[in-house]
Amino acid sequence: MSTVALDLLGGDGAPGVVADAVAHLVHSPVEGDPRLTLVGPPDLARALLTERGVDPSLGDAAIELVPATRSVAMDEDPLAVLRAHDDVTVSVAAGLVRDRRADAWVSVGHTGAAVAAATLELGRLPGMSRPALAVVVPSLTGPVVLLDAGAAPEATPDLLRQFAMVGHAYARTLGVTDPGIGLLTIGGEDGKGDRLRRSTHDLFLETLPFRYVGAVEGHDVALGRSAQVVVTDAFTGNVLLKGLEGAVTWAAQRMGEAYGDPGPAWALAEQTATSDFAGGMLLGIDGVTVIGHGAGTAAEICACVRLAARAADMDLPAVAAAALAEGGRDA
Amino acid sequence: MSTVALDLLGGDGAPGVVADAVAHLVHSPVEGDPRLTLVGPPDLARALLTERGVDPSLGDAAIELVPATRSVAMDEDPLAVLRAHDDVTVSVAAGLVRDRRADAWVSVGHTGAAVAAATLELGRLPGMSRPALAVVVPSLTGPVVLLDAGAAPEATPDLLRQFAMVGHAYARTLGVTDPGIGLLTIGGEDGKGDRLRRSTHDLFLETLPFRYVGAVEGHDVALGRSAQVVVTDAFTGNVLLKGLEGAVTWAAQRMGEAYGDPGPAWALAEQTATSDFAGGMLLGIDGVTVIGHGAGTAAEICACVRLAARAADMDLPAVAAAALAEGGRDA
Repeated sequence: MSTVALDLLGGDGAPGVVADAVAHLVHSPVEGDPRLTLVGPPDLARALLTERGVDPSLGDAAIELVPATRSVAMDEDPLAVLRAHDDVTVSVAAGLVRDRRADAWVSVGHTGAAVAAATLELGRLPGMSRPALAVVVPSLTGPVVLLDAGAAPEATPDLLRQFAMVGHAYARTLGVTDPGIGLLTIGGEDGKGDRLRRSTHDLFLETLPFRYVGAVEGHDVALGRSAQVVVTDAFTGNVLLKGLEGAVTWAAQRMGEAYGDPGPAWALAEQTATSDFAGGMLLGIDGVTVIGHGAGTAAEICACVRLAARAADMDLPAVAAAALAEGGRDA
Repeated sequence: MSTVALDLLGGDGAPGVVADAVAHLVHSPVEGDPRLTLVGPPDLARALLTERGVDPSLGDAAIELVPATRSVAMDEDPLAVLRAHDDVTVSVAAGLVRDRRADAWVSVGHTGAAVAAATLELGRLPGMSRPALAVVVPSLTGPVVLLDAGAAPEATPDLLRQFAMVGHAYARTLGVTDPGIGLLTIGGEDGKGDRLRRSTHDLFLETLPFRYVGAVEGHDVALGRSAQVVVTDAFTGNVLLKGLEGAVTWAAQRMGEAYGDPGPAWALAEQTATSDFAGGMLLGIDGVTVIGHGAGTAAEICACVRLAARAADMDLPAVAAAALAEGGRDA
């Protein structure tokens, strides 16, 4: 059984919504659920869990409490905060993975802070210049890994090539056999997109050691037609991911109206939001790191914890390191 | 009554699907429908219309046929083709607007060819460096104008400012009072996106003569929360637009399954695809130009024709020119 460290202070609804998630995991466990380590002020953690009928010291549900007192506010510079303080929840949680006291860690707070903490405490894998946040979109044909969804705002062809390799590794740990890699761009005409995409396309054709299916477009991510790994820069990836979320909410509202019964439409939207889609997997880091939506619900946080546990069980960082090493040899 | 020139040879299903659209407009007219001018080989046009029970020389439904024999293939360089030939449908159709023989023109073919023909035959409005393709997304709160959705792959802050001004004009002709302008970016943290967005945000704050609501994210386009005009570069805009389309198809499939009755879900998806969403309005050009999906159905082509007629009735180019002049004075 793996152990997942969870940031009590991250997220718009923290710490209450994080405690709700812990209570749900304790009261409604499923097979494969990890042991939990809650990172935050221990007295606060104990009080919140007790209110929710969870005794952190009890039996199978034993939850370790690891002290850390500070989070990073949305308007703070994460690197400055992490360097100035040694009691920040994201650093302490990532440090537990580095010290092998946990197998993975999860935060639903400040994305930049979680990326910085993971990079500082766990380090990048050899061959990886910057980590990438990957999300799993439940397409019509199965899981599609979209990355980068928000970690590294500016990209180069070589960075996108690194993303392709770790994305390929992630898709394989999700059970996709021989995933096809697609480069997100804007259609067959007009020279296949902007300068970055044209250079990247040539680089992928020449050097990618995995199956490259070529250019894909925005609709291919939800339809899942040819690529199971869709590679793009963080700006485009984040806009597309949030666009898909907005469109699903739009569709739930409008289709609920069209059927005269909103129940099933909202249930589907909720089920999608609490699928693997809930968690961003930070790839290229030497330790399993899952970053959820800041506005995540308790159900979404549970989904992040379960995603982190599965990735730890598959030893995702080792699979990604092997993919990067394979790519490095061929380049 | 306005006159709309329609490219018979543009689109994946041309010329048949374009003739289907013409037949539908003739057989099922609605108030405000324009007179049609069909641009293509006249014998072909006559034969296709006759097969569909339309006599182009008859009565109220009189359809002018203007000869042009050539289209631009997807793998051809549009500028080279347009400069080498004077019988290309997109050039002839745009030329009809220039010569005041039509009030607007529509093509569902090669986007790059239509943009080039519009620019060459009609010219850019003063103050506009490059035209932008704007789509109207039927958000939960009303129409949202998203631009650029695919005309100009690389952008600068000044170009995005021009897009904001013509997008504002377009939203007003759609009936939106005092539209708010949003800059599409990736969230409040990490310095609000990439370099282009940070520079553009500062420029908008300092010089935009219209109401600037600040940064918006991918979900805001479908939800319609604060901005009625969402400004971005063509790469991001096209990926987002196609992402929304893919997500609506995904939702129609999944929600049809969830309700056990696919009918209403697909009807809603079809209704969305044949709303104003069907047509890209090319803004910043001195003549109404609508560019539809290459794969557009007859119903989508009809929607493009009606959108073009409404924009001509509102004299959209004059409204856009006034907005650019207002912005130019304040800059």
